[in-house]
Amino acid sequence: MELVLKAPLPWRQRAGAWLESATVQRSLIGLILVNAAVLGLETSPQLMTDWGTWLHAADRAILVVFVVEIALRVAVHRLAFFRDPWSVFDFAVVAIALIPASGPFAVLRALRVLRVLRLLTLVPSMKRVVGGLLSALPGLGSVSAIIGIIFYVAAVIATKLFGAAFPEWFGSLGSSAFTLFQVMTLESWAMGIVRPVMEVFPLAWIFFLVFILSSTFTLLNLFIAVIVNAIQNEHSGESASAAGDELAQLRVEIAALRRELRATRPLEH
Amino acid sequence: MELVLKAPLPWRQRAGAWLESATVQRSLIGLILVNAAVLGLETSPQLMTDWGTWLHAADRAILVVFVVEIALRVAVHRLAFFRDPWSVFDFAVVAIALIPASGPFAVLRALRVLRVLRLLTLVPSMKRVVGGLLSALPGLGSVSAIIGIIFYVAAVIATKLFGAAFPEWFGSLGSSAFTLFQVMTLESWAMGIVRPVMEVFPLAWIFFLVFILSSTFTLLNLFIAVIVNAIQNEHSGESASAAGDELAQLRVEIAALRRELRATRPLEH
Amino acid sequence: MELVLKAPLPWRQRAGAWLESATVQRSLIGLILVNAAVLGLETSPQLMTDWGTWLHAADRAILVVFVVEIALRVAVHRLAFFRDPWSVFDFAVVAIALIPASGPFAVLRALRVLRVLRLLTLVPSMKRVVGGLLSALPGLGSVSAIIGIIFYVAAVIATKLFGAAFPEWFGSLGSSAFTLFQVMTLESWAMGIVRPVMEVFPLAWIFFLVFILSSTFTLLNLFIAVIVNAIQNEHSGESASAAGDELAQLRVEIAALRRELRATRPLEH
Amino acid sequence: MELVLKAPLPWRQRAGAWLESATVQRSLIGLILVNAAVLGLETSPQLMTDWGTWLHAADRAILVVFVVEIALRVAVHRLAFFRDPWSVFDFAVVAIALIPASGPFAVLRALRVLRVLRLLTLVPSMKRVVGGLLSALPGLGSVSAIIGIIFYVAAVIATKLFGAAFPEWFGSLGSSAFTLFQVMTLESWAMGIVRPVMEVFPLAWIFFLVFILSSTFTLLNLFIAVIVNAIQNEHSGESASAAGDELAQLRVEIAALRRELRATRPLEH
Repeated sequence: MELVLKAPLPWRQRAGAWLESATVQRSLIGLILVNAAVLGLETSPQLMTDWGTWLHAADRAILVVFVVEIALRVAVHRLAFFRDPWSVFDFAVVAIALIPASGPFAVLRALRVLRVLRLLTLVPSMKRVVGGLLSALPGLGSVSAIIGIIFYVAAVIATKLFGAAFPEWFGSLGSSAFTLFQVMTLESWAMGIVRPVMEVFPLAWIFFLVFILSSTFTLLNLFIAVIVNAIQNEHSGESASAAGDELAQLRVEIAALRRELRATRPLEH
Repeated sequence: MELVLKAPLPWRQRAGAWLESATVQRSLIGLILVNAAVLGLETSPQLMTDWGTWLHAADRAILVVFVVEIALRVAVHRLAFFRDPWSVFDFAVVAIALIPASGPFAVLRALRVLRVLRLLTLVPSMKRVVGGLLSALPGLGSVSAIIGIIFYVAAVIATKLFGAAFPEWFGSLGSSAFTLFQVMTLESWAMGIVRPVMEVFPLAWIFFLVFILSSTFTLLNLFIAVIVNAIQNEHSGESASAAGDELAQLRVEIAALRRELRATRPLEH
Repeated sequence: MELVLKAPLPWRQRAGAWLESATVQRSLIGLILVNAAVLGLETSPQLMTDWGTWLHAADRAILVVFVVEIALRVAVHRLAFFRDPWSVFDFAVVAIALIPASGPFAVLRALRVLRVLRLLTLVPSMKRVVGGLLSALPGLGSVSAIIGIIFYVAAVIATKLFGAAFPEWFGSLGSSAFTLFQVMTLESWAMGIVRPVMEVFPLAWIFFLVFILSSTFTLLNLFIAVIVNAIQNEHSGESASAAGDELAQLRVEIAALRRELRATRPLEH
Repeated sequence: MELVLKAPLPWRQRAGAWLESATVQRSLIGLILVNAAVLGLETSPQLMTDWGTWLHAADRAILVVFVVEIALRVAVHRLAFFRDPWSVFDFAVVAIALIPASGPFAVLRALRVLRVLRLLTLVPSMKRVVGGLLSALPGLGSVSAIIGIIFYVAAVIATKLFGAAFPEWFGSLGSSAFTLFQVMTLESWAMGIVRPVMEVFPLAWIFFLVFILSSTFTLLNLFIAVIVNAIQNEHSGESASAAGDELAQLRVEIAALRRELRATRPLEH
């Protein structure tokens, strides 16, 4: 922010400041909202036959603006750009639109709307909330790993026990894991899965009961970890400072008391 | 509340006080309870053939009382009436009954029972609780917006990917959003929706897993925001005051100590 | 507990003490466990044909003991017995077995097992937990009333709107309330109820979305009220006492300081 | 850890230290991961026909390592080994693989993957989290017992009332308990269970409503007990220490004040 007189690349600083200016930021937010609307309208076959060319043209035009913006930011920040995860996210969602979406990559055409998620990085209040959500994730690492192990063990057991009789649900590790995820969310677990399985394996309820209780209990603890974190963050600051104020005032008074006491001593000598 | 001697419209003040009096408030609560019962009885075809005329007459009579009451309150408070959201709510639920419920507005006949919700504004303890519920909403703004963006993006992707094959569930943005809401509530998400979709698109589980995890995690954070708010509001007040009392007593004692110390000094001089 | 020498009804005190003695209490708990096992065994048709007479005899014998115990407690505590809700509960679950369970009262035969719930009043640690659960209920009054009003209003609207087309689900106020309770628990709400209804009334999703959001949000607040209460009860006591101990020690020291100060004064005079 | 010169069984100490060394621990974690992969690959019929012999050989080789390790730990710690629940767990999951899995024990072959759960005892951060989860369980004792009693009573009543008409769901105590567990998780409770039952017993909704409300309310309190415990553990430590620091500093200052005061006294004499 200091004045640079003998200008080596002053354009980089000016371009960086311009990109961060409120006008540019607001224009980008507006462009994304327009882009979101255009991509939404494109889902209507009726509108596509009538206005398809215009919608595509608008989408392309907006894409060009985004590509220029990202290119400018890369030019300004160079390697530092790729060290900021938010920037990498912006880069990725724009880059998706540049990959030719043909053949096996046709699905990428549908993912172009991920660009709308840039709203989460552009609107400061949302960026803060998303940052909060993401910052809660690392603390969940150990519990997630435990849930992962429970899932893997349960999937292997289920595949070995029920795989032959129910290939659709437990035929492979993958389908077992999917079915167990469904059971963990309690969706149709009894009527849809466990009752039919129990007709072939009457004791299957033991496996599923143990799985439901252990996985939901671990999940509950994952939720609690998030709640406790949130409460602590919000809480500790506030209540501590409130009590701290009172205590600080007390200390000021005691210090005054000591000063007065010291002031009396010389007189006594 | 000061005495107004040269009475410009003293009737307004008297009418306002009378409307707020316990007798009138209790009568209104009683009338709404009777109205609720009448509207409940009207749902029985048996009772309608026997007592339909009487029930309609009772409903109309009570409606007239409400219209008079609202008119009086408008006359008393004038424009201020429409600035109080609770009053506007009372006005709206009574006004619904006055719109001729014929043709496309036939549905309004069923909405007349919304009048019973006036209980929430008339009973003070309920008004307080509802006020508490509503006051929790603004703090949810950012998280709700994020959920909204997740829904919009997911609906566009689902419509583009699965719309052609499953028009009933993903045919348009609206039906996709409804289906995704159903998936978020975990209702029949696997057996009803995702398993049939996976028979056509084997990799569809990736999309739905990402959607379920991100939407429920964001929803969990919305819940936690409400919980943390509630705990903070209730808590900080109490515990702070409890500790505050102790500290205040300490300060009184220290102040006494200083007074005593000061009292000893003059004697020494 | 003082010695009463001129014994007016000393047997009441002795009987009361004897009923409260650990031996009697433990015997009653044992009897209830035996009774629970007997009533459980009675559900097996196989066992009933072989041992039915013995099981019935054991049940009757245990019932006699309970009747004698309750009668003794009524004799000891007289009217005070009926003022203690736990005693009334004991009285009720035993009395159920005395009503002749024939004709329309045949269902009462199945309710005899409610006697097992006396465990909740006999085991002190359980009585404490149940007391805690019940003490949380009054605080839920206002929120429960609001949920009740939401349900009543929604049931009337649903009956009027959908009653004619879906008599099984919305034919009467009662069946509408049941269906709405099912929707609130999110069980089959979309695939089972709302999608079929939307085929006749395409805009029905508005009603159900508003109902789901408002009822689950109110329910969430009911849960939060319970959580906040629980945290406050547990928490405030502990943290307050911890800080209180420190503060109390501080006050002792300051009091000592004042005493010392006062002790110096006389010498100065 | 003191130097033992006249070595009675010094090999036990050396072996114990060697087993606890980072190298051995990491090797064991690596072996378990390899074992987990091998057991996962064994679920694929395709891979089993091609590589079955090699996979089995790898599994056996790793098993031998584990048996040697456990045997060594038993030799080192002797009876103390069986007093540590984590060691007993390690012993049990390895022992499962040694039981000949034939005839009625064929199911044990599938349980060999439980060995992977040893990750939970080997990785310190996971051991801590699992220990935290398990330490939360005893506090749930009373509430779990109450849920157990509610289940038993409800199962007996349901079997007696609905057993004859719906043998598949309520035919015995066991199937009633399973169906009630399903109802408590709210899975298909209305469309799948209660509506069909209500066609035979129109008043059945009373029983199920009471059961759902009481069991979910008790369950909610079980969750809250876990949450409150977690918050207290994390919280009390921190906030208490923060306030404690301030208070301790205050006490130091007051103690200094008293010393100064005492220092003034001798001079006055």
